[in-house]
Amino acid sequence: MSKILRINTKEKTSVFEEPSEALSGLGGRALTSKLILNEVPGTCHPLSSANKLVIAPGLLAGTAAANSGRLSAGAKSPLTGGIKESNSGGLVAQKLARLGIQALVLENKPENDSYSIIVIKKDSVEILPADQYQGMGNYEIMEKLWNKYGEHTGIMSIGQAGEQRLKAASIQQADPQGRPGRALGRGGLGAVMGSKKIKAIVVDDKGCDRISPADADAFKAANKRWVGMLKEHPVTGQGLAGFGTAILVNIVNEAGALPTKNFRSGRFDNAGDISGEKMVELIEDRGGITAEGCHPGCVIKCSQVYHDKDGKYLTSGFEYETIWAMGAHTTIHNLDEIAMLDRLCDDFGLDTIETGVSLGIAMEGGLIEWGDGKAAIDLLKQVKVGSIKGKMIGNGSVFTGDALGVDRVPAVKRQALPAYDPRSVKGVGVTYATSPMGADHTAGYGVTANILSVGGTVDPLKKEGNIELSKNLQIATAAIDAAGLCLFVAFAVLDNEDGVQTIVDMLNAQYALSLTPDDVMALGRSILNDEKEFNRRAGFTKFDDQLPEMFNEPVPPHNTQWDFTIDELQESINF
Amino acid sequence: MSKILRINTKEKTSVFEEPSEALSGLGGRALTSKLILNEVPGTCHPLSSANKLVIAPGLLAGTAAANSGRLSAGAKSPLTGGIKESNSGGLVAQKLARLGIQALVLENKPENDSYSIIVIKKDSVEILPADQYQGMGNYEIMEKLWNKYGEHTGIMSIGQAGEQRLKAASIQQADPQGRPGRALGRGGLGAVMGSKKIKAIVVDDKGCDRISPADADAFKAANKRWVGMLKEHPVTGQGLAGFGTAILVNIVNEAGALPTKNFRSGRFDNAGDISGEKMVELIEDRGGITAEGCHPGCVIKCSQVYHDKDGKYLTSGFEYETIWAMGAHTTIHNLDEIAMLDRLCDDFGLDTIETGVSLGIAMEGGLIEWGDGKAAIDLLKQVKVGSIKGKMIGNGSVFTGDALGVDRVPAVKRQALPAYDPRSVKGVGVTYATSPMGADHTAGYGVTANILSVGGTVDPLKKEGNIELSKNLQIATAAIDAAGLCLFVAFAVLDNEDGVQTIVDMLNAQYALSLTPDDVMALGRSILNDEKEFNRRAGFTKFDDQLPEMFNEPVPPHNTQWDFTIDELQESINF
Repeated sequence: MSKILRINTKEKTSVFEEPSEALSGLGGRALTSKLILNEVPGTCHPLSSANKLVIAPGLLAGTAAANSGRLSAGAKSPLTGGIKESNSGGLVAQKLARLGIQALVLENKPENDSYSIIVIKKDSVEILPADQYQGMGNYEIMEKLWNKYGEHTGIMSIGQAGEQRLKAASIQQADPQGRPGRALGRGGLGAVMGSKKIKAIVVDDKGCDRISPADADAFKAANKRWVGMLKEHPVTGQGLAGFGTAILVNIVNEAGALPTKNFRSGRFDNAGDISGEKMVELIEDRGGITAEGCHPGCVIKCSQVYHDKDGKYLTSGFEYETIWAMGAHTTIHNLDEIAMLDRLCDDFGLDTIETGVSLGIAMEGGLIEWGDGKAAIDLLKQVKVGSIKGKMIGNGSVFTGDALGVDRVPAVKRQALPAYDPRSVKGVGVTYATSPMGADHTAGYGVTANILSVGGTVDPLKKEGNIELSKNLQIATAAIDAAGLCLFVAFAVLDNEDGVQTIVDMLNAQYALSLTPDDVMALGRSILNDEKEFNRRAGFTKFDDQLPEMFNEPVPPHNTQWDFTIDELQESINF
Repeated sequence: MSKILRINTKEKTSVFEEPSEALSGLGGRALTSKLILNEVPGTCHPLSSANKLVIAPGLLAGTAAANSGRLSAGAKSPLTGGIKESNSGGLVAQKLARLGIQALVLENKPENDSYSIIVIKKDSVEILPADQYQGMGNYEIMEKLWNKYGEHTGIMSIGQAGEQRLKAASIQQADPQGRPGRALGRGGLGAVMGSKKIKAIVVDDKGCDRISPADADAFKAANKRWVGMLKEHPVTGQGLAGFGTAILVNIVNEAGALPTKNFRSGRFDNAGDISGEKMVELIEDRGGITAEGCHPGCVIKCSQVYHDKDGKYLTSGFEYETIWAMGAHTTIHNLDEIAMLDRLCDDFGLDTIETGVSLGIAMEGGLIEWGDGKAAIDLLKQVKVGSIKGKMIGNGSVFTGDALGVDRVPAVKRQALPAYDPRSVKGVGVTYATSPMGADHTAGYGVTANILSVGGTVDPLKKEGNIELSKNLQIATAAIDAAGLCLFVAFAVLDNEDGVQTIVDMLNAQYALSLTPDDVMALGRSILNDEKEFNRRAGFTKFDDQLPEMFNEPVPPHNTQWDFTIDELQESINF
């Protein structure tokens, strides 16, 4: 039976707790959101002792299920002021599951400025002084912790941004190579960890048994169907491994939906310079790696290693959304400069989407020139220095806009819009507007049916069908986040009649349950309703569920506008 | 018949408009709030072209009524995100009234960075290039405009803070000596004026007739009672003229309600160094002036001229709330340093309360040391430089707290609390929590009955009676703000059975009406309901109507806590 591990960061004490009946069947986002709703006051300051940071592996974590290694973290978000769940691959989810830890809950906060690290092993939980790590970037601390605690230890850490409690601060998770390429990125959860003065969490499952399913044969059979499904689908089986998510640069640009120069156009003249094809060419020329997984058991392998022009490691996990935010959005079109910005974000511990959009807003406000990659790198390095200029950029797009008196800021619930113009991909636009998370493409990725013809087709330029598309995807995504599966499995699941049933079969075999697909969708609805309720208590209303007025302008090349009413949008979250 | 003058700041055009029937009887805050509610979308960005800046004299402006020269300005606030009305004395209200201008409405905004000034005369409205004024502080531009347009011209202008569109930017109004000592301070209205690229508004009523009442004899008789009432009351007749509002430093400290070191105590050991008595001693030693009015027709004369140690003019309009914010809140206790901070705020165009609280938050966040006046002055001067550090301070307390990762920020609806601890003066605490304006002592000044025994007595330390006290004062204040009367008249009105009737008699004699005191209170209610409705459309809920969690701590010397529930507080705005 799994336990909840609570750590009082002020008193430096820990306690294992049996989960209540209401919590016992929950994992991942279902558990983080439920605990935040139950235990965190809606109106508290996100950096106060009343907030909690909840870390939970998904329901399938630690099993042999392919692509089940995602870890969720939740809190009241310093960025949005609402509830937040962020997740990433890495090693921690599987190790926590094997340690029998259903959730790790960081509570309270110290009054002084001394950091600690938390070291969790089979028979011990230690909260140790972290003086020697304070001020370090994620690259350095992860290397030091692997040297000390052993390679393939699970690590979560914050960089200088989290220590400064900046609103765009991420929590980075070590990838299977011990590098900070995986980010629990959005919503400033690194600032919550920083407010609790926890620099890193080390999770070592040495001596733990593998998790065995209740029905081993049934599990094995279901997982076999599962792996086959993922390998057969053109996106999960080939596309993502070949070019990573950066394959989307040319596709989305072609669709007229690549937001350019702070959402003034959906076409970027220099898209070819920052495309997945270009990235792969450079990687192959320079001896990098085009296909890596972010956790053991990944069969999709969308990650990569990107070397600089001298053939030296520069960054990894170089995503489409990062390339867009640092690139088309700012009009920077030098992939090496964009890779450096990505590396710095991973090192300092910053969400690349929020930070890239902030850099664009700094350009909009005249602080640096449009497209000036070197100036952007210099500005971003101010985060490490800790100057007020650095704090501005690290506090995200709305904050940067407010600092510079800019009213053209693409954000919902104070979180920056990602890499798809909502006027030309209306399904994902609805998700931006209404997701309890703020603007977030992963919360209901309408790009599937809008552009990629996965799981059907819905016209991206018209309103028709997009409310329903977003709603159904928001529900399915919440369920996938609770299972701890990589979101990219959705490509295969949406195109396969046996998709949802296969996931359900794995859950049933693992836990000796008899769930139906409807039960899993009900779980998705329940998660979203918990999140909506938290946001209501935090003061959110339907007026927060819309895009800013800048999207009333038509956007080339299709010259489509944002044309949903407030009340129409509410339908998409009537779960 | 008065007209509404609309100026399109993008097209540089102006038009006079007959007010609709619904608007024709309204003035001051009643008119600004009604126009904002009717014409500004609740969810627009406060710096976008959709916001409007409405400037309106009160109903008695331009008449012979004593203390009737207050000018209201309204907009969607860049600081709070809700509706805002700020008012100040000066010369503009009386001149607009004599020009027959019921309200001036600045609309739209230019796309380029060229500023204009607006010059309004009897027969002309000009929108002129302001290249020669751009970048100036308020002291310099007001002097230049008086030199050009004649002494005793009415002037409103913004300094460097408004040009940078900072959230604490004020609009300053020239006092009768042509100095920028009067501020439409709270809520960042200077940023709205800056977004519309209007550097100054010059109002010259040369050639206009004085306003004559419908019933001259009745008006004269009522005004005689009015002047007598103001002169007889100990506060309005003597106290304020003797020591200005700074008389409150010792009184509030004695009451245990002078918030010290970011609201950690209600007693400041060094209060004597920054008291009204000390201020008067220095003014008299150095050849300053202890009693000045902020507009012609003022009989209270709470303003003063404060000289530096060399006998040179340093600042004027040196208020209790300013001295508190720059002083007890930051623990600075050198009155010359505080006077310099006040002067810089007037010159750059910043709200002194918001800025002082921000400086304290900069101390809380470790950027400068507690009580270091020289460091505070240096930091404030960064606003003129336009550095990001300056933008941080000029964007107010919540922004500064967010920049520095501080969760102990005393603000409601993102506006800083003024100079009375809400745990020890609960009547004004209720107003802070629930006023549609955000934390604002002038919106319902419970200090009257809580501490000064004016208009009755209500225990400041207990809950009983304070909801009702705040509610009644919020209603009365809204009516006074509509009439264009100085709020300090309330001291006399609350203690005089004939008080409200005398105001009603002046209004009836002026406009040939037959209002009752109940009608005037109904006007107050209607204003507040308009403001609540705007805020609802801007996404505010009851969760925004409360104090931050830091006020759950007990505060010495009385060790009282903030103990109102969310639902109890709603009663205070059930108008």
